[in-house]
Amino acid sequence: MTRPLTQPAKGTRDFLPAELRRREHVARVIREVYARHGFEPLETPTFERLETLLGKYGDEGDQLVFKILHRGQPLVDGIRSAHAHLQEPGAIVVGRSGEVARGAETLLADLGLRYDLTVPLARVYAEHAGKLPPVFKRYQIQPVWRADTPGKGRFREFYQCDVDVCGSTSRVVEAEVTSAVATALRTLGFTDFQIRINHRALLRALIEVAGLPVEKEGEAIVAVDKLDKIGADGVEKELAQKGVSAEQARALLALVAPLDARAGADALDAFAARLGDHPAGQAALADLREIFALAAHGPAATHLTFDPGLARGLGYYTGAIFEIAVKDLAGSLGGGGRYDELIGMFLGKPVPACGFSIGFERILVVMEERKMFPAHLASVDVRLAATDDAHLGAAFALASTLRAAGISVELQPKAEKNVPRLRKLADESGARAAVWLGGEDATPRVWLRETPEVREQVLGVEALVARLGPRG
Amino acid sequence: MTRPLTQPAKGTRDFLPAELRRREHVARVIREVYARHGFEPLETPTFERLETLLGKYGDEGDQLVFKILHRGQPLVDGIRSAHAHLQEPGAIVVGRSGEVARGAETLLADLGLRYDLTVPLARVYAEHAGKLPPVFKRYQIQPVWRADTPGKGRFREFYQCDVDVCGSTSRVVEAEVTSAVATALRTLGFTDFQIRINHRALLRALIEVAGLPVEKEGEAIVAVDKLDKIGADGVEKELAQKGVSAEQARALLALVAPLDARAGADALDAFAARLGDHPAGQAALADLREIFALAAHGPAATHLTFDPGLARGLGYYTGAIFEIAVKDLAGSLGGGGRYDELIGMFLGKPVPACGFSIGFERILVVMEERKMFPAHLASVDVRLAATDDAHLGAAFALASTLRAAGISVELQPKAEKNVPRLRKLADESGARAAVWLGGEDATPRVWLRETPEVREQVLGVEALVARLGPRG
Repeated sequence: MTRPLTQPAKGTRDFLPAELRRREHVARVIREVYARHGFEPLETPTFERLETLLGKYGDEGDQLVFKILHRGQPLVDGIRSAHAHLQEPGAIVVGRSGEVARGAETLLADLGLRYDLTVPLARVYAEHAGKLPPVFKRYQIQPVWRADTPGKGRFREFYQCDVDVCGSTSRVVEAEVTSAVATALRTLGFTDFQIRINHRALLRALIEVAGLPVEKEGEAIVAVDKLDKIGADGVEKELAQKGVSAEQARALLALVAPLDARAGADALDAFAARLGDHPAGQAALADLREIFALAAHGPAATHLTFDPGLARGLGYYTGAIFEIAVKDLAGSLGGGGRYDELIGMFLGKPVPACGFSIGFERILVVMEERKMFPAHLASVDVRLAATDDAHLGAAFALASTLRAAGISVELQPKAEKNVPRLRKLADESGARAAVWLGGEDATPRVWLRETPEVREQVLGVEALVARLGPRG
Repeated sequence: MTRPLTQPAKGTRDFLPAELRRREHVARVIREVYARHGFEPLETPTFERLETLLGKYGDEGDQLVFKILHRGQPLVDGIRSAHAHLQEPGAIVVGRSGEVARGAETLLADLGLRYDLTVPLARVYAEHAGKLPPVFKRYQIQPVWRADTPGKGRFREFYQCDVDVCGSTSRVVEAEVTSAVATALRTLGFTDFQIRINHRALLRALIEVAGLPVEKEGEAIVAVDKLDKIGADGVEKELAQKGVSAEQARALLALVAPLDARAGADALDAFAARLGDHPAGQAALADLREIFALAAHGPAATHLTFDPGLARGLGYYTGAIFEIAVKDLAGSLGGGGRYDELIGMFLGKPVPACGFSIGFERILVVMEERKMFPAHLASVDVRLAATDDAHLGAAFALASTLRAAGISVELQPKAEKNVPRLRKLADESGARAAVWLGGEDATPRVWLRETPEVREQVLGVEALVARLGPRG
């Protein structure tokens, strides 16, 4: 008999206790910090109507949505339609893009797995508008799914962690969001990070000042977004491919080049001269000045850095944009910005919004690499055993007493004669104490981690509770 | 333009902040209690290989698994095969049972959504055997999905909350599991619940003593399981339909009838006479005696009640079985038992196991109905506003100071001139204070919930922090 496959499905992971505790630690810190900033939790269903998801993430995104099969008669009808679709002239070949399969998918499926946390937020905002406060500040930490080719550090199921404010155009929102993210990162132990900030309207103004035609704006933003990865030469080459002249490209690259003094609001003054008298650009600069002035009073102050070359790839930003850069780390730990024309997609009217998405999975990888996790996250306080069967009841009673006092106890289900083995188990798991009882004397004996010189002592139950009372 | 549908997909729910906080409160209590009992957290992927899921939940279960469409060429091949399958003689009609669709589903799909938390646990136990401790105590709180017809209180996406011990035959396990569940329920505020306990081997012995043939055992257990719902007459009728004689049925009903003194271990002694000299039955009674003796020292002691009529519907139990009954509440809040032949399904060898599944969604409904939730779960401590635009920066700075001191603050993104409105917002949301600043005097003014007679006072920042310092 061949053993059945027991690995998790391709691109997914089982989270065993030790790893899950690290994930929960990060999620707990973020939740706690976001809640302290007045953000409220939201959770949306794992699957949405397929029509809710499709058409929101571009062609490639549509293909990467996991689709759930129709059930019953609609499935039978779907099979017939999909088969007919396959018979259409020229439809037989499936290219890399999966053209045929794509056409057939929507005939066979009616639901899709959550692809990000933004479209569900927009749907919730439209559906529950009457029940939500006019300014809705929510955070959401939930998995999303992409039918991508899994690779190193790339998964088909992974967590996203978004914080967004819907319904306000105030710059206080940008200050709040960056403040929350900076506090979360600092609480997790990151110190050497920058929150790079720029403004889409400023970027558009620079593109205009450089002389690029307005229809090249989107492509120019995508090219500038690659500045960190492919350098100025690479960006110039890409712009040339898009029909931008070398002169225009160089002018743009000069305009978005890093400032000598990037830190703080002073950089904005230094930059104003580059822009000249461009009303929309100056208005964007005034926006950034306001954000810097507000943030100066908060925890993001020392992290916020103006960077005119920051572009962010996504099309939907309309105002300030952010990205977290960590010293000696390629890529970012998250990003965000103002996007005033997306959350209203289901309402049919614009809703101002600004948010930040922390790279939850990336943060876990970096914290692991840099050994930033506390040594024994939430291990039990006490490893407890009876040394003979006759004392199993007494051991269970002691476990109950300790637990009632808030102390976590792992009780060995069978008698453990080998006390050194119990101590070793306790030591390796990071427990604060090993406790055992048995023999003629039913008084518990204790090995305490914090007093290694006293390798064993006899303590009454009350003394034990006093000694091990719940951790801070 | 018609507005797109924005309700969550059929059978699923959006959890807005107030409801989610109640759900998180229940999950937090359960996690905390289970961890104190030495259980470790586990999370498994949302979808599994379809072959991992199918054949584990019976024919009906197989149909209720949500299936995820193949992608690319396998989907095209699947459509062709499924269409050919539809052309088979007699295959065209789809009955209520969805026969045809079922045959086609496995040709079109390769993944399925998690249907329960037990099959994934069995898969994890086989896959990661080397990394897990020999006795693996885990809890898992995650959603599962069933392609069922949604109805009142019935959803297609709902949470399960399981606690299980794998790898030990010790009765300490039964005592630990019931202790953990009883503590969780008590911590949530339930007092009037019983943990009914019985034993599958005892039930089988009673069925034999009543004279039923061994091949009727399964049907007899299913019938006895309905005792609470349809009464003794109903069970007798059902047994008659299954070919059990009226005499045998009545004998069985007399054997499983409630005891006069149901409470505690004494009931077991009173019961022993009914059973007579049946070795397997007496062994099962000895098992129950041991569990009662252990549990007597713990928090489940006053809740544990022997009930020879408890049967549990599921086929896989092999030892003690439990079910939570709450006074004046139809149905149960959860159940479980020992099942020594299931967790090894992927390993090919038996693994002893015992667990308990708390009815997470049901508990939420009951706590809601009985108003058992704390009044303002995790609302912000302070509602803060500037009363004019000039003080937005000072308000943001104050928010940052309070938050750094561990106080949660909701800052109004725009200036709020209307102080009574701010106070009302604070009052309604359960905040401890409303704070505002502005005008000529930038000192914060405070309305505190706990001193309603002082409707407003002036406090310096330090005094404010001291007064509002983080809640216990």
